[in-house]
Amino acid sequence: MAFLKVVSLEKALEIINSFPLKPTIEEIEIEEAYGRILAEDVISPIDVPPFDRASVDGYALKSQDTWNASESNPVVLKVIGEVHAGEEPKVEVSPGETVYISTGAVLPKGADAVIEFEVVEREEDKVIIYKPVYPQAGVMKAGTDISKGKLLLKIGTKLGFKETALLSAVGFEKVKVFSKPKVAIISTGNEIILPGDELRPGKIYDINGRAVSDAVKELGGEPHFIGIANDDRESLKEKIIEALKYDIIILSGGASGGTRDLTASIIEELGEVKIHGIAIQPGKPTIIGLIEGKPIFGLPGYPTSCLTNFTLLVAPLIRKLLGMDFKIEYAKKKLAHKVFSVKGRRQFLPVRINDEVAQPILKGSGAVTSFIEADGFVEVPENVEILEEGEEVRVVLFKF
Amino acid sequence: MAFLKVVSLEKALEIINSFPLKPTIEEIEIEEAYGRILAEDVISPIDVPPFDRASVDGYALKSQDTWNASESNPVVLKVIGEVHAGEEPKVEVSPGETVYISTGAVLPKGADAVIEFEVVEREEDKVIIYKPVYPQAGVMKAGTDISKGKLLLKIGTKLGFKETALLSAVGFEKVKVFSKPKVAIISTGNEIILPGDELRPGKIYDINGRAVSDAVKELGGEPHFIGIANDDRESLKEKIIEALKYDIIILSGGASGGTRDLTASIIEELGEVKIHGIAIQPGKPTIIGLIEGKPIFGLPGYPTSCLTNFTLLVAPLIRKLLGMDFKIEYAKKKLAHKVFSVKGRRQFLPVRINDEVAQPILKGSGAVTSFIEADGFVEVPENVEILEEGEEVRVVLFKF
Repeated sequence: MAFLKVVSLEKALEIINSFPLKPTIEEIEIEEAYGRILAEDVISPIDVPPFDRASVDGYALKSQDTWNASESNPVVLKVIGEVHAGEEPKVEVSPGETVYISTGAVLPKGADAVIEFEVVEREEDKVIIYKPVYPQAGVMKAGTDISKGKLLLKIGTKLGFKETALLSAVGFEKVKVFSKPKVAIISTGNEIILPGDELRPGKIYDINGRAVSDAVKELGGEPHFIGIANDDRESLKEKIIEALKYDIIILSGGASGGTRDLTASIIEELGEVKIHGIAIQPGKPTIIGLIEGKPIFGLPGYPTSCLTNFTLLVAPLIRKLLGMDFKIEYAKKKLAHKVFSVKGRRQFLPVRINDEVAQPILKGSGAVTSFIEADGFVEVPENVEILEEGEEVRVVLFKF
Repeated sequence: MAFLKVVSLEKALEIINSFPLKPTIEEIEIEEAYGRILAEDVISPIDVPPFDRASVDGYALKSQDTWNASESNPVVLKVIGEVHAGEEPKVEVSPGETVYISTGAVLPKGADAVIEFEVVEREEDKVIIYKPVYPQAGVMKAGTDISKGKLLLKIGTKLGFKETALLSAVGFEKVKVFSKPKVAIISTGNEIILPGDELRPGKIYDINGRAVSDAVKELGGEPHFIGIANDDRESLKEKIIEALKYDIIILSGGASGGTRDLTASIIEELGEVKIHGIAIQPGKPTIIGLIEGKPIFGLPGYPTSCLTNFTLLVAPLIRKLLGMDFKIEYAKKKLAHKVFSVKGRRQFLPVRINDEVAQPILKGSGAVTSFIEADGFVEVPENVEILEEGEEVRVVLFKF
């Protein structure tokens, strides 16, 4: 069964993209919306401000009443009432009249301007005005900030604090966002134990379970760590069946070849193996299948290989479920030094990025530290044996 | 009482920095550590790998046994056992002997190399080897990836998926992080209502409550929205007392001047007003006090003013509680066009950043859209009336 279905990276992505998964949408409270991805275009249902609003504390009046006012010839208006922020005005301003108004309050009918209280004199129910006021002075007209019907935010926007504030400003208590893809994660291997367990001879601590879980979080998904499966059929099958309640299942393989065969055989029993090996390095042992419509990814056990394949194969699917494009994003960088590769092998080498330069990390995929230090990985095409220093290369960034 | 304690921005920061608040540390499960700030230097308690480990599936042997091997003169070794990943080897390799070993398994005593199974021939309990093997071939020595005692992560590191994976690799099930500062948020003003409530005449939806809550989240703090207080003594005092169970209290003022006096008077009753007005624009009405050792910030009501003052005054304190430096960070940018200011006033104007250019947003601080569109704000010093196009300016970024 092994390596019967080795495909190119492009073919693998085409198959993954054809899996029967679609973004789902949920409506959530605005309090929970920070960091989520908007699943609708947001049109403002109201004007902001919703009414002509005083922008200073002062006196609402008819501006025309003041046009002849001067230091030597002040205008005197009669104060007929008050209006405070949050109140509906109970009075209407006629010529010769004014109303005390506080910042944020509704401009009363009849008035078209507000003069600041600091520049007038108040004597009992009279206000003495020494200078003309322009129409609209001290007033923010309804809808000048945001007009009803305006497109405020587009579908696909990641909601930061400015976006949630904008939604709040136009009265949204709930908002439609893309549901977080639920990703089940299983680590496999008889040698793998959980942090906190005793490190008996031959055992090593799980790395991929943590790395993949938190990479899923960073992508905007919801990780569910199912646990560690031993390299035996019952243990692995039980964990896979438990994982089928989530949207996507990710296994990271034990280091040994035997685990791969086991994974493939269980997928064949429960569903179908779609891909068995991808013509990239790392990635040759990667298995991808479909069980009850749920994609299952058997990724390599070495941490760098696991994360590289996660980034190339799983991340585009998670992004798609969050309403984004299904694709790998490459950045162009310059190679820091000459790299030798093997002709006929399409390789992805971990690199550290300093400014525009990609510095290869040459520790080998078995090392934890090689992916810890990596900012991404550079592609070495199949037909290339040597990449020269300073050559432009395509880099996939470890940044979700 | 108003404006008795107007201070410079620098003096205000000095006072805030002197408040009796210190970072606190908590130990959390590694599952919860993603995104948190490390509160300890992490030294590896173990070697990784913890033992000499096979990095291929094959045969463990004494390399010296193979040094004379060739196609025409193969070496034959006796297979005396097997060792699989996760097991403790029960055999020891003597000259002329070999042990089948799977990737990730412990190299048995006596062996110093592993040859891949693909390049040998197996005949019953014999293995035929046609080429020499170097010492350490196919082996990852204990501690070559991470050595015991190595400094892995420094205090203050933000834990991404690579960092949590590294902690997992060395067996950490718990980790010490800085506690999230708990920030109480109160919106004030008779005109302010919550999204979802009916927009009756004179009312507007709360913006600052949402913006400040989510900005606190972005900074790494834990927001607690207490609600909206009316412009009356009892309502505001009750909310402030409720908020005292958190580390920091933030009020965003109603737009009107009356609210400020009310806030100041309640702070004086319950504690002490430390600052009443800061010599910056916006920021003149900002009140800062201390009640039962808890800092309370009365920020302006206009969203842009509120967020600007939050960024200048509260964000440094939240960062300090997360183990970071207490300071405002400025970036240098070029001004997109000439700006006129008022001499004698130190201003902060909202700007949009395009590459290295700061484009002023001139909508006024009453507009929601002026802070929504802003990436930060540029400082116009007190003694400056005109900033020229292309001039280098200091920008504080709205990025936490």
